[in-house]
Amino acid sequence: MRKILACVLALLFLCQLAPRARADEGMWTFDNPPLKQWKERYNFEPSREWLDRVRLASVRLNDGGSGSFVSPDGLLMTNQHVASGQLSKVSTKERDYVRNGFYARTRDEEMKCPDLEINVLVSYEDVTKRVQGAAKPNASDAQANEQRKSEMAAIEKESNEKTGLRSDVVTLYSGGEYWLYRYKKYTDIRLVMAPEEQIAFFGGDYDNFTYPRYDLDFAFFRVYENDKPIHTDNYFRWSKSGPAEGEFVVAVGNPGSTNRLLTVAQLKYQRDVGNPLQMQVWTSRRDALSRYASRGAEQARQAQATRRGLENSIKRLVGQQEGLMNPKMFARKEDEEKKLLAEIGRRPELQRKYAAAWSDIATAYRDLPTTAKRIAFTTLAPSRLGTVASQIVRYAAETAKPNGERYDEFRENRLESLRLTLLSPAPVYPEMEEAILAAWLEEAQKTLGANDPFVRAALQGRAPAEVAHEAVARTKLTDVAFRKSLLGGGASAVAASDDPLVALARRVEPIYRELRAWNEQHILSVESSAGQRIAEARFAVYGKSVYPDATFTPRISYGRVLGYEEDTTLVPYKTTFYGLYERARGFDEKPPFDLPERWKEGKPRVDLSTPFNFVYTADTIGGNSGSPVINRDAEIVGLNFDSNIQKLPNRYWYVDESEGGRAVAVHSAAIIEALRKMYDAGRLADELMGRGQ
Amino acid sequence: MRKILACVLALLFLCQLAPRARADEGMWTFDNPPLKQWKERYNFEPSREWLDRVRLASVRLNDGGSGSFVSPDGLLMTNQHVASGQLSKVSTKERDYVRNGFYARTRDEEMKCPDLEINVLVSYEDVTKRVQGAAKPNASDAQANEQRKSEMAAIEKESNEKTGLRSDVVTLYSGGEYWLYRYKKYTDIRLVMAPEEQIAFFGGDYDNFTYPRYDLDFAFFRVYENDKPIHTDNYFRWSKSGPAEGEFVVAVGNPGSTNRLLTVAQLKYQRDVGNPLQMQVWTSRRDALSRYASRGAEQARQAQATRRGLENSIKRLVGQQEGLMNPKMFARKEDEEKKLLAEIGRRPELQRKYAAAWSDIATAYRDLPTTAKRIAFTTLAPSRLGTVASQIVRYAAETAKPNGERYDEFRENRLESLRLTLLSPAPVYPEMEEAILAAWLEEAQKTLGANDPFVRAALQGRAPAEVAHEAVARTKLTDVAFRKSLLGGGASAVAASDDPLVALARRVEPIYRELRAWNEQHILSVESSAGQRIAEARFAVYGKSVYPDATFTPRISYGRVLGYEEDTTLVPYKTTFYGLYERARGFDEKPPFDLPERWKEGKPRVDLSTPFNFVYTADTIGGNSGSPVINRDAEIVGLNFDSNIQKLPNRYWYVDESEGGRAVAVHSAAIIEALRKMYDAGRLADELMGRGQ
Repeated sequence: MRKILACVLALLFLCQLAPRARADEGMWTFDNPPLKQWKERYNFEPSREWLDRVRLASVRLNDGGSGSFVSPDGLLMTNQHVASGQLSKVSTKERDYVRNGFYARTRDEEMKCPDLEINVLVSYEDVTKRVQGAAKPNASDAQANEQRKSEMAAIEKESNEKTGLRSDVVTLYSGGEYWLYRYKKYTDIRLVMAPEEQIAFFGGDYDNFTYPRYDLDFAFFRVYENDKPIHTDNYFRWSKSGPAEGEFVVAVGNPGSTNRLLTVAQLKYQRDVGNPLQMQVWTSRRDALSRYASRGAEQARQAQATRRGLENSIKRLVGQQEGLMNPKMFARKEDEEKKLLAEIGRRPELQRKYAAAWSDIATAYRDLPTTAKRIAFTTLAPSRLGTVASQIVRYAAETAKPNGERYDEFRENRLESLRLTLLSPAPVYPEMEEAILAAWLEEAQKTLGANDPFVRAALQGRAPAEVAHEAVARTKLTDVAFRKSLLGGGASAVAASDDPLVALARRVEPIYRELRAWNEQHILSVESSAGQRIAEARFAVYGKSVYPDATFTPRISYGRVLGYEEDTTLVPYKTTFYGLYERARGFDEKPPFDLPERWKEGKPRVDLSTPFNFVYTADTIGGNSGSPVINRDAEIVGLNFDSNIQKLPNRYWYVDESEGGRAVAVHSAAIIEALRKMYDAGRLADELMGRGQ
Repeated sequence: MRKILACVLALLFLCQLAPRARADEGMWTFDNPPLKQWKERYNFEPSREWLDRVRLASVRLNDGGSGSFVSPDGLLMTNQHVASGQLSKVSTKERDYVRNGFYARTRDEEMKCPDLEINVLVSYEDVTKRVQGAAKPNASDAQANEQRKSEMAAIEKESNEKTGLRSDVVTLYSGGEYWLYRYKKYTDIRLVMAPEEQIAFFGGDYDNFTYPRYDLDFAFFRVYENDKPIHTDNYFRWSKSGPAEGEFVVAVGNPGSTNRLLTVAQLKYQRDVGNPLQMQVWTSRRDALSRYASRGAEQARQAQATRRGLENSIKRLVGQQEGLMNPKMFARKEDEEKKLLAEIGRRPELQRKYAAAWSDIATAYRDLPTTAKRIAFTTLAPSRLGTVASQIVRYAAETAKPNGERYDEFRENRLESLRLTLLSPAPVYPEMEEAILAAWLEEAQKTLGANDPFVRAALQGRAPAEVAHEAVARTKLTDVAFRKSLLGGGASAVAASDDPLVALARRVEPIYRELRAWNEQHILSVESSAGQRIAEARFAVYGKSVYPDATFTPRISYGRVLGYEEDTTLVPYKTTFYGLYERARGFDEKPPFDLPERWKEGKPRVDLSTPFNFVYTADTIGGNSGSPVINRDAEIVGLNFDSNIQKLPNRYWYVDESEGGRAVAVHSAAIIEALRKMYDAGRLADELMGRGQ
């Protein structure tokens, strides 16, 4: 049957060479929603108001996820795994909110997050002409790139000054379009409720990217302004029934990153160099954390949130790489490119303007593999304190420059968000920081060799463990006030500091800058120039029937709630509470299939036939975690939290219905049933159901 | 992860070229149990008594399955799917015991099966020398084959006359050994209990060969003699707890057929010709039955048992063929053969005696593909009445010959069992018989062409539907008395009969005989001669550390109760009642995931955490259905009923622990829980638990 399936898949690929969107494909921008597909496939024609309300009720969490307003009083829903970073930061050895969950019985008990910023997209404006026009006619790729960046910085600053809103110029279609996005920003976000991680992440890394699934991966925050909950009319009502099998649904969120518009040369680089290198970086980090966690229960607690994130990244990367390693799937990308080039070849004007773009990229990429390894390892980022040190050093240098000449992340209008992170009061665990930094420097030394400039600058001939110990044991960067004084003191304060971790960051900074400049000049500027031409070529051939690659900005995905075939049997569209207890008992409740105490004693209280998780065909990816899943009436029917394993190659192409690719969501009914019967959180359930306070 | 797994598997294969039994491999005969492996791996050293008792408590059901005595009063346990043939035969339009189940509340209500024979192996004797010695030194392969067959017939007849027991000479190791098996035979078998097919076969064909699984595939018979239940001391007690994870277990049963000792030439034939041909035969039969079943509910009922069997065979064949089509797996068989031939090549005496055997087979097989299609289609067997007609015609001709010259199945000591089948009072559905026969003749005509001898003889220039209608509409073979009179009347009665179905069988009989003779002379006798030499070569190189291919005779398999990894997650060693309700609700109880009424209303009565099914690593195959799964104390812990999809290539090689191959059993606790709480069958549960009447 697998073989039969493989043949069917192969046939499907052959029929689908045209880059027209496949069924339910696409992460669409709000300026270009897939109205035609909705009308044709689902007879769905939303009003402008529907679209606006959906956008304004949806939220980006800058911890790396999505969320939505689910009450007029600023109640915000996302995943427990998106909230876990903040949960971890407010936890202590004595009170572990990740492990034990959290519930504020009254508004007074709602707990402020140390460094969470959320954004709501309030307006957007096409600035393509202004940005593209900033590049002078005879500029080199590198010069043009600088000119565009400078223009983007100016647009952002202008807008920010005019509106007071966070203003980001977003590059879409690899530079085919530029849009100014204006966000309402909130930074007083308070924790309301999160279940125990063991039920939010039941089955642990084994069941991650797995379906059937039994994760109650939800969490609630409340958004405050001026120390009061905000009031908003733009929130999602709760569906009474949840989704039926086959029902049309929409997911709104901020997919982080896809690579669907890459050329074949770029994909080959990912497959042969980029992904294996990324795998090495992540596994070495994960292994270092695992060793640290094995020292004891408290160390395990400290490491948990980051470990979970790394395990997730690694498992996802394995799935993505399997897609690239699949010759049939890769051939499909090659054929798509061949077909587009052939079409361009038939039209002399397109040929003259665009044909060289592909070879420009291929040529630029030739030199990348040798430098890529250096770029990957020339950083202190795996250590949180190391990141703080490097960013403080960089902050001093960058903010001294005119706005248009700075690194993107130091542009004027982004500094406030950056300072929120750098000055976060979240606890730091020096013992863990030292272990991470030592392991990282060791891995860098092993990979790059003792004579590599970064390794020489970082170690100065000493052992990695010694350098890490010295840097972390005596640093004062654990103290927020010290960080603040350095930021305030500018370049001279940074230069004068005798803090050993600041000193380490200073030593490696020139190597970092040199590599970043090389990358900007040799790779990014070529990609930018060629990317724009390729996008224009695509628009010329296919029109704007395509959507841009994901950029962690608001997008609309859609599809149907639908099970699938796997091997020779059927996988159901939904799971129920029965299945949670089934899976726990099947393993005799051995970890990671053990249940929180509450879920053992509380079993008689719940209706076991209540739906738990479900799958649907929408095109989502990391960053969509926490996306509301809504029906035609814009009611919440689910909460997106994962994809199944079949879907993972969707970084490079949409894995469609017939291939078994599915997004996984918590069912709306599971949340209500759990809140009322397991967590004695009727107040919250009532708020969701619109039954007032 | 799949790829990583594939690499690991490939490495494993490379390390495992020697044909020594892998962990938990083997379907061992009672004369050669795997004592060494048990001792080494599980520290298990059963006594002779243990082995004898286990053998005498185990049963072969000649419907094609296995079973065991589970009380001193002849209570016999097997699978519902093994019992379903008999259940179907005692059902009527009004009382459908397959669909609704059956339970005899008292012994008086126990219901006699129309044509079920069971066998218990009471003694066995090595007759290799006598059979092999019967072949004269200068005989051709064909002559030697005849001489051995004649000797086997003589041994069987002698034994039967001397002991009154059913006596079969069994060919093991492709002719390397011959054993005389003596069976106690029972033919008064009565139905005691079977659940609804919808719970015995929950999930239908989709969940067949699937795990996790939720099938309560059990049934109980009682064995009678002289109209009274037999009494036996050789029965299995019931385990109080069932198996723990990792526990050592033994399965005893009658695995039907494996092809593990085939040469590469034979395997290639299977892969390229034999299996595709078999697939055509089965799918055309299945499709004919499906068309018939679609005529109405009663027709669907009539077709159900056979359809289920065919669906099962087809799905299994797909899995087997996938194994053969897997280049890495096939290469392993080629390497094994190469290694054995190399070893033989190093020893001149072995080389002289055995080396030609492989090429003899390869040469013989060259002509098989062209004739194989004719052999496959030259039969009326898909129709039950057609089988009866052909066997009556054949019976007359064969029983007129001396015992030693007859077709095997007409040897003197087998006639009684054969007559039980031919004179079965089980109902026949002429409308269905006609539909099956018409479809079969049409498929034969399409495949072999109008000028094929069988097609010409069967159709005589008419349309298949016309021939089938004429033969079935007017036949009297539906009448058992008529069949009896023909069997009694011998060749002259058969020759004189104007019954149109008998006439059809007479017309095609010469073609059948010609092809059978060709096969005997060109293929089977070469296989027999070469097979014996290959077996001797294996014994010379490896000793008797190997087990013979399965032959639907009693075997011992063993292994551990153990879950496995699949894709990137874990599959638990057991399922529970929770999971049954989970899977039903996941599909909103749509067929085939609907539940019998009893299981909907009875849910509050059962403990949902009771184990339901489990998996274990023992080496089993079709025919093992109904095998008792026992612990070290020879207590019942489970009831074997299936394999998972990973295991299906095990017709050709053992699919081991690391490859995820598993046997699937009903958990002993599920049977007791269901009997007591769902079926109000406490009497039966008490009998199993040894709590008297």
